[in-house]
Amino acid sequence: MWEDQCIENLMQKILITGFSGFVSSHLLQYLSRTGTGFEIIGISRNNFTPGPYKNLQIKGYKADLKNTELARQIIQTEKPEAIIHLASESSVAYSWQQPVSSFQNNTNIFLNLVETVRHLKLPCRILSVGSSEEYGIFAPGTLPLTEEHELNPISPYAVARVSQEMLSKIYAQGYGLDIIMTRSFNHIGPGQKDNFVVSSFAEQIVKIKKGVSAVFETGNVDIVRDFLDVRDVVIAYMQLLEHGRRGEIYNVCSGVGYSLKEIIIKMMQIAGISFDYTVNPALIRPSDNPVIVGDNTKILNECNWQPVIAIEKSLRDILAYWEQKLN
Amino acid sequence: MWEDQCIENLMQKILITGFSGFVSSHLLQYLSRTGTGFEIIGISRNNFTPGPYKNLQIKGYKADLKNTELARQIIQTEKPEAIIHLASESSVAYSWQQPVSSFQNNTNIFLNLVETVRHLKLPCRILSVGSSEEYGIFAPGTLPLTEEHELNPISPYAVARVSQEMLSKIYAQGYGLDIIMTRSFNHIGPGQKDNFVVSSFAEQIVKIKKGVSAVFETGNVDIVRDFLDVRDVVIAYMQLLEHGRRGEIYNVCSGVGYSLKEIIIKMMQIAGISFDYTVNPALIRPSDNPVIVGDNTKILNECNWQPVIAIEKSLRDILAYWEQKLN
Repeated sequence: MWEDQCIENLMQKILITGFSGFVSSHLLQYLSRTGTGFEIIGISRNNFTPGPYKNLQIKGYKADLKNTELARQIIQTEKPEAIIHLASESSVAYSWQQPVSSFQNNTNIFLNLVETVRHLKLPCRILSVGSSEEYGIFAPGTLPLTEEHELNPISPYAVARVSQEMLSKIYAQGYGLDIIMTRSFNHIGPGQKDNFVVSSFAEQIVKIKKGVSAVFETGNVDIVRDFLDVRDVVIAYMQLLEHGRRGEIYNVCSGVGYSLKEIIIKMMQIAGISFDYTVNPALIRPSDNPVIVGDNTKILNECNWQPVIAIEKSLRDILAYWEQKLN
Repeated sequence: MWEDQCIENLMQKILITGFSGFVSSHLLQYLSRTGTGFEIIGISRNNFTPGPYKNLQIKGYKADLKNTELARQIIQTEKPEAIIHLASESSVAYSWQQPVSSFQNNTNIFLNLVETVRHLKLPCRILSVGSSEEYGIFAPGTLPLTEEHELNPISPYAVARVSQEMLSKIYAQGYGLDIIMTRSFNHIGPGQKDNFVVSSFAEQIVKIKKGVSAVFETGNVDIVRDFLDVRDVVIAYMQLLEHGRRGEIYNVCSGVGYSLKEIIIKMMQIAGISFDYTVNPALIRPSDNPVIVGDNTKILNECNWQPVIAIEKSLRDILAYWEQKLN
């Protein structure tokens, strides 16, 4: 079988799905900095040309992974040694609006991908990215969430991610594919779209500072999340590809929870301004989890990874990103 | 909301998916016998005209539920008061061969169905049929399986059914649809195809009795299953439609386990013949559950249902079916 050959060697040819996305852009920056000369194959639904990046040889394909035949052609042609599957419609709110699209663009695209690898008998390590949303609501006394907590998905997006994870296990245990799974917690970082909460806060603060706007709107500021800088996330993914155990699930998280109120106060301090915020009831989701905090002991112990970017640096860089973007 | 109007009234217009299947044929026989004058809308992937049934007004559609637009047109035109969703690729073995087809023809077709009902805001009670395969392997000491046992699906088919059930909960709790879920255990009964174990046994025994064959082949005869006669199953489904609680899951099972060896011995006695059986290693599945036995307390208590057909009658009728079919 092909199980061992990928693990020891450093993989050089990596397929990245969701290639035009936020996480992918930071992954490319990291891979470029390592100077190791990776060969990158990117798949995106959009017309997308990254780059240029030093030390990377990049080839991009425009393809929808729902198109099984197209996915097969690309993978058969390119024969990647590793796949980092970032493609996802990852918004909980959107999944309530478009549950079928959310399911297809999480679960079905992943199923098409692993089925293609199975059919081609490709020796290839696959990183199946999942979500902390899979856990559902737990009482604060039962936190932090470990990989052993039961899953109780409470949104269409969360169901799609649990389905993906169950399929990952079947393909790993039943068909022998070399799959590693994550449950990734909230990402933050420069370049994230403003439909994500911390990026939206930063954009609003920069606008207030510039005098373009006087209003700061938010939903429930008491919810607590485990925010991890995307630049730590992408290193975790590479460490998982190198050191993770086949068929295992790893939380990718900081292990620390901050309320949105704490985030706002920290950003005010960094930006050097002060303001009152308005709670917009339309931004409060009825069934939002009050607290999500993960336990990252497993990945720390097994994969030689730990988060290194302090929350203050993340927030400062996000504010700087919006300063530059709004100039 | 429309939640209460279906529960008290007896539903008269029922949509049945998987209309050309084994369970559907017995459901039609039962509905015909009640004499209540049901109006039946059937959907099947096959060209299928069910034989005339007294007291039933039947209209059949040929449609693949993967075709969302076609499903929408039928449901919008017919506006059923209840949907009994029997359509499924329900073979575990086949799901290992064709995991994508199994997933699409369990999970995705169900998602299309409930999404259509949601979009049309149709006041309609839906029976989402699931499977005992969802449970996975439990040690005999932890049996019988209740609805509270954790799910640990170990085949592509089982994953597809758990995904369907998670989606059912989202549509019931998140969108307010009137969905009741089952975990249905092994069905037996006259008319079942011979890729199901008990029907295959009966066919082989009848062939031996007729002198057409001298060989009786089986896989592992020590596995224990909870067999329920399909004629009890269809009554359970109608009782669930009438008395089940929205968003709840019900085991549909006999509560009694028989090993395949016991089934073979009972069938020998009924047929009045004796023979040795050959274990064909090709028929032994590597990861088959050793024992599956369910607890039916919940449906007994809540839905005024209990199995009434003894195993001996089931086996006698199945043998009679093959006697007639092989004439």
